[in-house]
Amino acid sequence: MSPEQIPVFEEVDFLQVGARNMQNFDLLKALGKTGKPILLKRGLSATIKELLMSAEYIMSEGNPNVILCERGIRTYETYTRNTFDVSAISVLKQITHLPVVGDPSHATGKSSLIKPMSMAAVVSGADALEIEVHCNPEKALSDAAQQLTPAQFGEVMEAIAKARSIL
Amino acid sequence: MSPEQIPVFEEVDFLQVGARNMQNFDLLKALGKTGKPILLKRGLSATIKELLMSAEYIMSEGNPNVILCERGIRTYETYTRNTFDVSAISVLKQITHLPVVGDPSHATGKSSLIKPMSMAAVVSGADALEIEVHCNPEKALSDAAQQLTPAQFGEVMEAIAKARSIL
Amino acid sequence: MSPEQIPVFEEVDFLQVGARNMQNFDLLKALGKTGKPILLKRGLSATIKELLMSAEYIMSEGNPNVILCERGIRTYETYTRNTFDVSAISVLKQITHLPVVGDPSHATGKSSLIKPMSMAAVVSGADALEIEVHCNPEKALSDAAQQLTPAQFGEVMEAIAKARSIL
Amino acid sequence: MSPEQIPVFEEVDFLQVGARNMQNFDLLKALGKTGKPILLKRGLSATIKELLMSAEYIMSEGNPNVILCERGIRTYETYTRNTFDVSAISVLKQITHLPVVGDPSHATGKSSLIKPMSMAAVVSGADALEIEVHCNPEKALSDAAQQLTPAQFGEVMEAIAKARSIL
Repeated sequence: MSPEQIPVFEEVDFLQVGARNMQNFDLLKALGKTGKPILLKRGLSATIKELLMSAEYIMSEGNPNVILCERGIRTYETYTRNTFDVSAISVLKQITHLPVVGDPSHATGKSSLIKPMSMAAVVSGADALEIEVHCNPEKALSDAAQQLTPAQFGEVMEAIAKARSIL
Repeated sequence: MSPEQIPVFEEVDFLQVGARNMQNFDLLKALGKTGKPILLKRGLSATIKELLMSAEYIMSEGNPNVILCERGIRTYETYTRNTFDVSAISVLKQITHLPVVGDPSHATGKSSLIKPMSMAAVVSGADALEIEVHCNPEKALSDAAQQLTPAQFGEVMEAIAKARSIL
Repeated sequence: MSPEQIPVFEEVDFLQVGARNMQNFDLLKALGKTGKPILLKRGLSATIKELLMSAEYIMSEGNPNVILCERGIRTYETYTRNTFDVSAISVLKQITHLPVVGDPSHATGKSSLIKPMSMAAVVSGADALEIEVHCNPEKALSDAAQQLTPAQFGEVMEAIAKARSIL
Repeated sequence: MSPEQIPVFEEVDFLQVGARNMQNFDLLKALGKTGKPILLKRGLSATIKELLMSAEYIMSEGNPNVILCERGIRTYETYTRNTFDVSAISVLKQITHLPVVGDPSHATGKSSLIKPMSMAAVVSGADALEIEVHCNPEKALSDAAQQLTPAQFGEVMEAIAKARSIL
């Protein structure tokens, strides 16, 4: 997405800045001039501090509606797509007032890990989760290995409800 | 610890291999000749596969009593001491039969993160946790910032009990 | 930089895409529609393959004038600002036809390392170097620790000439 | 290697501590009680400071003959086996009096990179190099992809001589 494309999305409820654009400062500043909620995803190797500095670019232009998103960081581990930094969720909740979302789908890249990682994100303080679901994951055009079927998603939702019940 | 020191520990219940010794293969083989439970900590930048290969060094000598421990991996993030790889706990439970321990104290290095990360480890499938407690953390000879007081530990134990109740 | 700003730079000789914009795909495609040489800096934690994929975004729009730049990658090491991946320079020269630039200033962040790292980049196959120089480094508005004085730069140029002489 | 095995090597000229044993402190202390030169390899994700602290374990026992070795660090890059941190060679030469060795074979894992990386290590200040050679690399029992044939090694030696000539 680039600044001049923002008007195209006038009717959507909120806009997402992808991990690869977390430090696209012109875009951040342009989004800061809208009033829309912005879901800001942490860059692939961004520190917690850098994520907050990127949020500042949006907020300093007058838009306070920033939602932070932990979506896994790049490490040497290859079994998972990225490494889900759940402690970053707890840290962000401790040091900012902003809502924090966890994205276990991109963080792990594996459908079998979505249920436990969703629960882990919730007990770490996540305010919401972003989870990929597809009616037929094998035919998904991208990220097939991390998509849940609707039935699996139902199970994950039950697990999330349980995790929320103990907070 | 080195192989010739093993007899010193004859009366202890189990032996811990520290992260820096995870690939000390002579030690692993020597521990494999004992029957004692071995708590094998993941190396600072060890992959999941390397951790399992180290467990094999112990088991191949005839000692099946290996306990795996996730204690945080080294990344570029400096806010936490290490990055607690909770998805590795889920992965290890899925691909091995071995018990898995989480160590949120070393993983985060911050007492304020022990409660959420203990819960995260439990819902990720951890069979046990290793948590540092000190009567007077400020006077601890090492790792002071990550020590819990007994009162804080009581609170963490309650949170752990709740997390276990929903599994 | 964002796509709509490109016309502002009509009279410059070439355009640089900073590390944080390496995967700003809209920008890359827009630059691909110009005929200008594009200096594409490797992202902070981009793989060699990802750097080449980003070059493809530019070239696929009809602009073959892409120059690749290694400027240090993010690791856990804190003594240097980043880790200068000089083997990536050799790899890029082996697997592509594109010119490759080394940036020892951003890679190390330390003026005392510019001379040896410039020589290392040259013997690794770098076609050019990007080095920061300032008449009064202590007063530089950014990156002061990595700036060379003109006198130091003269010494570095001599070292570079020697390194080129042996290839 | 473990401390009790040291006497086996009484007649060798020097002893090498592998990367995976860099923080095997019992071994380091035992080696400190010998007078032999010790080639201490940097751990897979060890910082420069940690490498020096490990050298201290040897020297504090009375053995000043420590040689430091940079052999590549673990990063997310998969094209090379490790990432050869040549700036660490320059740093070590600047902040210590100890000799420093570069190991381009383990650092890159690719025979085609040994020549440029050997030159890069030399111009970075390396006092010596450790390079793997095999009469028939395809039949090597380990690390086949990084072995040089004797003929290739001859070419590398010429390149090294040239690199040394310009220092």
